[in-house]
Amino acid sequence: MNLQNRINIHKYISGKTEEISDDVITEYPLTIYLNDEELVTLLCSPDHLKELAVGFLLSEGFIDEVDEATSIDVFEDKGEIHVSTLIKRPLREKLMGKRTVTSGCGKGTSFYNVLDAVRSYRYKDSIETMPESVLQLMREFNQNSTLFRETGGTHGCALASDDEILIHIEDIGRHNAMDKVIGKARLMGLDLSDKMVLTTGRVSSEILIKACKQGIPVIASRSAPTSLAVELARETGITLIGFARGDKLNIYNNFPSIRI
Amino acid sequence: MNLQNRINIHKYISGKTEEISDDVITEYPLTIYLNDEELVTLLCSPDHLKELAVGFLLSEGFIDEVDEATSIDVFEDKGEIHVSTLIKRPLREKLMGKRTVTSGCGKGTSFYNVLDAVRSYRYKDSIETMPESVLQLMREFNQNSTLFRETGGTHGCALASDDEILIHIEDIGRHNAMDKVIGKARLMGLDLSDKMVLTTGRVSSEILIKACKQGIPVIASRSAPTSLAVELARETGITLIGFARGDKLNIYNNFPSIRI
Repeated sequence: MNLQNRINIHKYISGKTEEISDDVITEYPLTIYLNDEELVTLLCSPDHLKELAVGFLLSEGFIDEVDEATSIDVFEDKGEIHVSTLIKRPLREKLMGKRTVTSGCGKGTSFYNVLDAVRSYRYKDSIETMPESVLQLMREFNQNSTLFRETGGTHGCALASDDEILIHIEDIGRHNAMDKVIGKARLMGLDLSDKMVLTTGRVSSEILIKACKQGIPVIASRSAPTSLAVELARETGITLIGFARGDKLNIYNNFPSIRI
Repeated sequence: MNLQNRINIHKYISGKTEEISDDVITEYPLTIYLNDEELVTLLCSPDHLKELAVGFLLSEGFIDEVDEATSIDVFEDKGEIHVSTLIKRPLREKLMGKRTVTSGCGKGTSFYNVLDAVRSYRYKDSIETMPESVLQLMREFNQNSTLFRETGGTHGCALASDDEILIHIEDIGRHNAMDKVIGKARLMGLDLSDKMVLTTGRVSSEILIKACKQGIPVIASRSAPTSLAVELARETGITLIGFARGDKLNIYNNFPSIRI
């Protein structure tokens, strides 16, 4: 399925209008079924669907390890993905009791449960990060954001080692992009304990929690973090970098481990 | 509660690092209780909480009119808002059967139900819109986005008549910002059938559906729409404008009603 669609639109510039054809980013509803029960519909870009499902299930705590999923079947035309797991946890209970919250969904107590769980987590070591490496990776990340350049309608997320981008995925949603990267990294069997997440999007508590749950020690964004993300970063020990653009960046946590 | 927090961070510029104090946007968890049952926790900016609750309940179909809510009590310190309604619909059923979907939540069939409902909706008339008016409103909208200028961490949403911004709210989430604007407009008793929604955020199907549900005939964004939003705009007849910046804008639907 195409990640973008060419359509006819009218473009207005300083008093003149012309009909042109332009690319808009595809929005695709994907319904995830877990052990034959309908779980969720994600509105996403129509690629890396398997990675998205795995990343979502990991992020939301429906599975703890990739290999808990015994089969993953994608039905792209129907907008469905079916995941089976060996351990069949009662879904409704999971859904109602443990859902984390994105703006507009979930149960409240579950958010506080997740928050408490993350707050009790401590990174054992902080890895050393060079600001120049982060900025160089960010430049590369921006250059490779082709869907964004063509449609203006995506967020990007990447996983990088100290000197190389290993995975880079764009999606209409910043949560989806991050879940796809997490899903892909876990399916590849990568060790995440010395990697860095790059994102174009704002770092809210939810994004920080996704990184913490996977033990990723550094998150760097070209945008702003929220107060709660900074608070959680300082409690858990994850390195949090924001506004990484050009030759500048802000370090919100772990300054000593940022080697200048 | 403060909308932003001043914290100490390290700022790196071209090889040099200094400790500075900087503003980060506050992220605040607000749990909505409907008739004493916990409904949802929204991660939001801590203002216009009543408007957010009302807008959320309207957008998600828990109430159809503002006056269905007989009491609304805000407990800011606890992060709770309690709404009572005269008609007490079974909550669990509503929640499981009718939740619309934001990226990361909801039940699949419900998204298709909402999609079908919106697809069957037709705007009776399209209102005439002047591109120059939209661009002038957008300039004003951007100028007044003070939280964004100070923190870089918000989206803005506004409700405007043809020549004036009536409501302008910034929030860490674009869905929240729009729900707050809808809630405020409905609490003020405004007629929305001749108004315009302005947003800084991308227009996905969910954002378009929120506008359609309130019968707002024009939505203008400084960012990109998705393919599904364009499709829904063309099916329902809502006027959809994107990339409204400087002296340019794109018209994705209702070109004839855009008077040049």
